[in-house]
Amino acid sequence: MAAKLNVGLIGLGRMGRVYGAYLAERVPGARLTAVADRNPGVARSFGSEYDVPKTYESHHDLLDDKDIQAVVIVTSTSTHQEVVVDAARSGKAVFCEKPISLTVEGAREMIAAVERAGVFFHMAFQRRFDAGYMAAKKKVDDGAIGSPVMFTSISRDPYRPPLEFCDPKASGGLIADMGAHDFDLARWYMGEVKTVHAIGGTLAYPEMKTVGDIDNAIIDLVFENDALGAVQLSRNAVFGYDIRADIWGTKGSIQIGYHRQTPILMMTAEGITHDVVPYFMERFENAYVAQIKDFVDRVSAGTGPAITGADALEALRISLAANLSLKSGTPVNIAAT
Amino acid sequence: MAAKLNVGLIGLGRMGRVYGAYLAERVPGARLTAVADRNPGVARSFGSEYDVPKTYESHHDLLDDKDIQAVVIVTSTSTHQEVVVDAARSGKAVFCEKPISLTVEGAREMIAAVERAGVFFHMAFQRRFDAGYMAAKKKVDDGAIGSPVMFTSISRDPYRPPLEFCDPKASGGLIADMGAHDFDLARWYMGEVKTVHAIGGTLAYPEMKTVGDIDNAIIDLVFENDALGAVQLSRNAVFGYDIRADIWGTKGSIQIGYHRQTPILMMTAEGITHDVVPYFMERFENAYVAQIKDFVDRVSAGTGPAITGADALEALRISLAANLSLKSGTPVNIAAT
Amino acid sequence: MAAKLNVGLIGLGRMGRVYGAYLAERVPGARLTAVADRNPGVARSFGSEYDVPKTYESHHDLLDDKDIQAVVIVTSTSTHQEVVVDAARSGKAVFCEKPISLTVEGAREMIAAVERAGVFFHMAFQRRFDAGYMAAKKKVDDGAIGSPVMFTSISRDPYRPPLEFCDPKASGGLIADMGAHDFDLARWYMGEVKTVHAIGGTLAYPEMKTVGDIDNAIIDLVFENDALGAVQLSRNAVFGYDIRADIWGTKGSIQIGYHRQTPILMMTAEGITHDVVPYFMERFENAYVAQIKDFVDRVSAGTGPAITGADALEALRISLAANLSLKSGTPVNIAAT
Amino acid sequence: MAAKLNVGLIGLGRMGRVYGAYLAERVPGARLTAVADRNPGVARSFGSEYDVPKTYESHHDLLDDKDIQAVVIVTSTSTHQEVVVDAARSGKAVFCEKPISLTVEGAREMIAAVERAGVFFHMAFQRRFDAGYMAAKKKVDDGAIGSPVMFTSISRDPYRPPLEFCDPKASGGLIADMGAHDFDLARWYMGEVKTVHAIGGTLAYPEMKTVGDIDNAIIDLVFENDALGAVQLSRNAVFGYDIRADIWGTKGSIQIGYHRQTPILMMTAEGITHDVVPYFMERFENAYVAQIKDFVDRVSAGTGPAITGADALEALRISLAANLSLKSGTPVNIAAT
Repeated sequence: MAAKLNVGLIGLGRMGRVYGAYLAERVPGARLTAVADRNPGVARSFGSEYDVPKTYESHHDLLDDKDIQAVVIVTSTSTHQEVVVDAARSGKAVFCEKPISLTVEGAREMIAAVERAGVFFHMAFQRRFDAGYMAAKKKVDDGAIGSPVMFTSISRDPYRPPLEFCDPKASGGLIADMGAHDFDLARWYMGEVKTVHAIGGTLAYPEMKTVGDIDNAIIDLVFENDALGAVQLSRNAVFGYDIRADIWGTKGSIQIGYHRQTPILMMTAEGITHDVVPYFMERFENAYVAQIKDFVDRVSAGTGPAITGADALEALRISLAANLSLKSGTPVNIAAT
Repeated sequence: MAAKLNVGLIGLGRMGRVYGAYLAERVPGARLTAVADRNPGVARSFGSEYDVPKTYESHHDLLDDKDIQAVVIVTSTSTHQEVVVDAARSGKAVFCEKPISLTVEGAREMIAAVERAGVFFHMAFQRRFDAGYMAAKKKVDDGAIGSPVMFTSISRDPYRPPLEFCDPKASGGLIADMGAHDFDLARWYMGEVKTVHAIGGTLAYPEMKTVGDIDNAIIDLVFENDALGAVQLSRNAVFGYDIRADIWGTKGSIQIGYHRQTPILMMTAEGITHDVVPYFMERFENAYVAQIKDFVDRVSAGTGPAITGADALEALRISLAANLSLKSGTPVNIAAT
Repeated sequence: MAAKLNVGLIGLGRMGRVYGAYLAERVPGARLTAVADRNPGVARSFGSEYDVPKTYESHHDLLDDKDIQAVVIVTSTSTHQEVVVDAARSGKAVFCEKPISLTVEGAREMIAAVERAGVFFHMAFQRRFDAGYMAAKKKVDDGAIGSPVMFTSISRDPYRPPLEFCDPKASGGLIADMGAHDFDLARWYMGEVKTVHAIGGTLAYPEMKTVGDIDNAIIDLVFENDALGAVQLSRNAVFGYDIRADIWGTKGSIQIGYHRQTPILMMTAEGITHDVVPYFMERFENAYVAQIKDFVDRVSAGTGPAITGADALEALRISLAANLSLKSGTPVNIAAT
Repeated sequence: MAAKLNVGLIGLGRMGRVYGAYLAERVPGARLTAVADRNPGVARSFGSEYDVPKTYESHHDLLDDKDIQAVVIVTSTSTHQEVVVDAARSGKAVFCEKPISLTVEGAREMIAAVERAGVFFHMAFQRRFDAGYMAAKKKVDDGAIGSPVMFTSISRDPYRPPLEFCDPKASGGLIADMGAHDFDLARWYMGEVKTVHAIGGTLAYPEMKTVGDIDNAIIDLVFENDALGAVQLSRNAVFGYDIRADIWGTKGSIQIGYHRQTPILMMTAEGITHDVVPYFMERFENAYVAQIKDFVDRVSAGTGPAITGADALEALRISLAANLSLKSGTPVNIAAT
């Protein structure tokens, strides 16, 4: 058996614990050697549950640990810049949860630090590792639908996040937080975006106005090659987590997505009913595992990352341009951001 | 415009009124010239509603009407023999609603009378005129699934008929009444049946035992060419009218049927729901119209019928053999009926 | 039987012949008394095939015919104004195929003429008579999805029209020709539209640039009540006619539309395949029949029309604003048109 | 973290390697301590790939290993009796792959040995651990469909096994090998079976006649409570692995199963197509993992098995009765086996 990659995990919030559990139990090529969290009790409790040899309170200490070859960073977005820059300096391979940053400047600093250090840097966008999105990518690249002329996608959450998270200063707001995935896919399937136009509103949860966020938006895209795009975002898909994308070409179309989680149909006098996808962990569990495995495998093999900092920067620029358009009421050229 | 065919309709029960409305409004090649019903008020009322020139109380009088070129017989099954034999003698083209008869002897008499008179005789099995069943027939005959090796079908009613209709002496019982359609399709797609074996029970409506009928049955078929078949019959598909058939071949399979009547999906916190097919008129309206048009067109064109008395006789023999198997508990050879 | 309504049909192009056939064969309450077409051979040939008593070359002669109580106008859009104004003056009930006109001024003249004459005036938008769109309307109005916050719809043709029809001067172009249906539905489900923004391009059929039309577009809508909308239009859905609409509310969502025309599934080593909806006549046949029946029934009953000239005017204004936005690159306020 | 259960695996054929990989990588509560295979090279190679500390040639040696607390037996069916009896004597917890045995006598000996030794004994039927089958079980037990009156299921392989495996002396033949799963489900949902009747034939692969096996069968079931059942088995579902079950009740029905593996739809001029489920590992991967986890968890917790030897014995008796019916041509009472 090949030697395992020693991985350290920084940040044990909701997503951090998910990544930690996967690293501990579902990535045969990795050994989860250490976890770090500002709350030392959280780190110790997680370490005990998953047999993690070392736990740290500070990410600096984890980065100083010479045994660790790669780090997975799942801290809050506002700290990404500091931790990634530190990790790059330490020479370790870096995996960073999306979004890269709330500002273009922050993202550029991070990318520069990674380049200076010459380290491996993977930006997480797990949809690219989902079986459906991957199969569609292959079909599009193989010419199965001819020339793509339109990209449409849907990201709808079953409920709104806690209000503190809705604050655009913390999360970037609906468009940056949710739309990042769709903007990344748009670029992956179609190429670079030229202009965006956004409309949106606080239509389902009036209380979100108190923190300055919206709960529904539609963002139109015009690509460099003149192809068209539209992204729907919503926080009130009360019927379940609704994630889809369609690529429309001159010779056909591909629809990605599904709604039924469990393969049973109930047929009663009330109609024919099936369940729905509850939320993102049910929808993308396999994709998250595939992505972290891909990171470990690539670092171990010495190849480059599947998704780069430059990719994340472009998705961020589209988000920021869309927010600008929402405020100004007019289309915004990406080049201006 | 070609001359219209003068058609007389005999029997204005539930199905008779349906056929009458179609003949009056949806079959351009036909003129509904006369209707007959034992209840003269029913005939007059229907005639007035649909502008039918003549109404009769006795089928004899309608058959004596020289203007009428073709008759559609929708009387109760127990009277089919008398009316069809009379109609054949009158020299008119005949359309007879299924099932042909409750007895093999009755069916043979009818076929003999038709042959003696040399008249056109169509036996109604509307599923053969449904877009799905027709498309499947073409695919099977074109070899799209290779050699058919199995036929499975489902006929499930949303509720039981009135008890008086359940009486096997009136309707033939579950197997003869519902199964006739499936047995006709089995022969259409697969060829002749060699042996049948039936199991069944009064499982959902205990009160049906008082008239001696069952409400659920499974009938296995072995075809002359050794292919296999299974038919499911039920009176308690409370979720809607469930009619399906699958043909399984060496190179593929065809599934026929659908469940959603109206093209909308409801997506709420309770799940994703659609409506269902209420009953046979919603499922087979187009097939009934297509069948009666086919009858009119073929009579007008002077060609032979799409479905013959011999077809109906074979479906009846399978029904009777299945009933025999249900009683005896052992497989029954069709040749013995 | 109630007396039949004597209907005259003006215009025997493709859609005119469809309406004519329905009036002759599928609308029991109507008698197709006369047809008029500039090409007298076309009128005579149609009249002969469908037993229409009278044929005219000029719509004036048909309008002078005192037997005729109602007229169905299916001439080219550029002639709607003249024919509708003449028909209104003649005092007959009027059914006018969409779109009402290519200009707001034209539409306003027609509405004024109808009001002066006090005649019945129905503007055709057949989707409102489709079982799916109707069921959704009832659900929305019953509150089944709470407050609607977003409307999204798709209209995709399987191929482009002949180039001469693509000329915006003849058809209004992609947005006015196809989008009219979606804009009418948007108003029906959601209320009035405040602003629109359109992006589009000639992406699949370069030859359409020669006549100045586009083949793909996305139009965003902001409604008066701040709800959001997006309409996708395309001429290159090579997989079939793709017509859908979703209404998204605070308590659920409704999806309208379907893709499989014939109820069979083919399952072979190549995958599981079904057919598609070929084009609008297959998708909306029942809706066209229901709409023309509704017109005849309402005229006969003396009630008002289901869809008014004012409805058609609003859909036209949205179309024109969207075209303006496409040219200017900025959102356009409907009030400005 | 709780102490891990030391597990030994006996038999490294196709399924053995699958179980081994799951135990090594996906069952956090287990430590795969040893593997045994008659071919010592296979054991060493697997042990090296998955870091298994010890490898054995003889199952006796593995059973003598005091470190091992539980064994997973995936040897060929004909050896189940010897290995299970030995394992029981060794006092270890036992997991045995289905089917339990080819003979009732063999199964009874195994059960007796397990009872004498008082060891934990789980019989593998992974469908009971599939999300769909589990959700259906809960719905049925909760009364969501009223009283179950019919059970129908489908097991169709995409191709036939190698001829040597088709030999009924090795595998039990189509009915015992494939049907065991369906018969187990039938009992789980509906209760005990009273009589069976089977029809079958070698219809798709004539070469299977040389080893005496059939490739298609339909088995009817009558349950003790008079409910009805039908199982379809086939080796020629060339479109993919087709595994379904329906439970039909007095108040509704549940359909279990699905056909699309990857969540994309291809829409081209050839129609709308999706992929299919390739084979059992794609369909039941999660169920296999859940089952082996359940075994490890229950052994560790000291509770009883989810599926017992008695369950496996009953499924075997139904299989043998069905084979008897196939030969005799008449229904067979289970009590006679």
